[in-house]
Amino acid sequence: MSAVRPAISQVNVRKVNVSDAAVEVADVTATEEPLEIRVEGRSVAVVMRTPGHDEELAAGFLVSEGVVQHPRDILEVSQCPSIGNKHGNVVDVLLGGAVVNWDSLTRHVFSASSCGLCGKTSIESVFQRFPAAETRWQVTPALIASLPDKLRAAQETFSKTGGLHASGLFDLDGHLVVLREDVGRHNALDKILGHAFMNGMLPLNRHILLVSGRVSFEIIQKALAGGIALVAAISAPSSLAVDFAQEAGQTLVGFLRGETMNVYTHPQRILQP
Amino acid sequence: MSAVRPAISQVNVRKVNVSDAAVEVADVTATEEPLEIRVEGRSVAVVMRTPGHDEELAAGFLVSEGVVQHPRDILEVSQCPSIGNKHGNVVDVLLGGAVVNWDSLTRHVFSASSCGLCGKTSIESVFQRFPAAETRWQVTPALIASLPDKLRAAQETFSKTGGLHASGLFDLDGHLVVLREDVGRHNALDKILGHAFMNGMLPLNRHILLVSGRVSFEIIQKALAGGIALVAAISAPSSLAVDFAQEAGQTLVGFLRGETMNVYTHPQRILQP
Repeated sequence: MSAVRPAISQVNVRKVNVSDAAVEVADVTATEEPLEIRVEGRSVAVVMRTPGHDEELAAGFLVSEGVVQHPRDILEVSQCPSIGNKHGNVVDVLLGGAVVNWDSLTRHVFSASSCGLCGKTSIESVFQRFPAAETRWQVTPALIASLPDKLRAAQETFSKTGGLHASGLFDLDGHLVVLREDVGRHNALDKILGHAFMNGMLPLNRHILLVSGRVSFEIIQKALAGGIALVAAISAPSSLAVDFAQEAGQTLVGFLRGETMNVYTHPQRILQP
Repeated sequence: MSAVRPAISQVNVRKVNVSDAAVEVADVTATEEPLEIRVEGRSVAVVMRTPGHDEELAAGFLVSEGVVQHPRDILEVSQCPSIGNKHGNVVDVLLGGAVVNWDSLTRHVFSASSCGLCGKTSIESVFQRFPAAETRWQVTPALIASLPDKLRAAQETFSKTGGLHASGLFDLDGHLVVLREDVGRHNALDKILGHAFMNGMLPLNRHILLVSGRVSFEIIQKALAGGIALVAAISAPSSLAVDFAQEAGQTLVGFLRGETMNVYTHPQRILQP
């Protein structure tokens, strides 16, 4: 059977500085390996990811693509049983009757007819598949400000390698529900979505997402695919992430550091102190 | 005609903290917009990028893919002249006789025959197209340690938005040759490669690459496509980046901070002090 590799890899490092002699020491790096995602035997994507929670990653990828939503939409996610899959880098998803648009799933080069590609086009293509976020709850700034420390406390791998992005899903009381780490920030979020999918938690309309780095278009649209109405980040959002969140009805928080944060869109979910 | 958007976008931000009333201020984000890359009218990729140096990005993308190497391989990179391309988000590359494998260029889902996908497969598929790095020069640790400050001094956008990755190309005297920034770290490097391509500088076998963040498989293989034998990074490499650099004969430096650095592979290019 296949054996998935550990999330951390051993390396030998030469520690060099400008004045002293170098020393050789043992160190670790975040593992990066390709994962081929197949759907009913057909290859639909290869992602570079940190091994672990691969079934979640495959399911979350299909949530992000709008292929699946309810647990019944997937019968099984399994490691490809071929004797050649000795590294555990190929998973196959058996669908439970979900309708697949194979063209849009495998052809990531989307066609911009009439040469009119722009950020607005990208946003609208997502809105054709996912509804805008509509929730009525509110949380305090203090609750949001408490999340980064909880994420860091739960991150064991990050402190060892410095090479992993983290995504954390929190409930409205600020409790961490699930944490995932990966060399790819989009993979960490797909693993969160896959976890939620497998546990019948979608849509995540009473949850908060915290990401360790920056927020791009891809991150915010994956959050919408999961129904997440409040996305917070330690670092900066891109212009298109802000535009998307505004259109999608999502609250976007950036530069969440210490007791301060920037709220870019839909501040109505954050109570004034 | 098309007007490329600025690299920085204006936004209104609500500055929130846990105790005081929020204030609204004007702020900026790094612009993220899609760029469709066409080759002789055929769409081959859509990348989310920061506008600017788009012709370099398209050329560098094709260098990374092994399609072009010499300036004569591209006759022209132009904005798509259609009236619909009002955002300047579509470029078309006219080749000068280069042979294109359209399948491998457009089908980023590569087929893992016999289910044996692994990091080693990924490495070998690159080596079929690019030679290993072979150089005989050496630089001092002090020279490498001097690069991050030079990169930061040259980065104007980063300090404003906090949302851009930077790639800097240096010569063996430690002088900055070209700096590019982008919301996507791979785009910043493709722009560097495109600049080098357009100026007849390839292969970059007497240059050093410095990247502002982490080093993944994708970054190190793009560096090899450009002939770069020494890659330094402010942050951590992934396991596959280390394995790739080892096989490719590249020197990989990580955690380059202050006067110290970790040398993961091929330390022979770095003189002992």
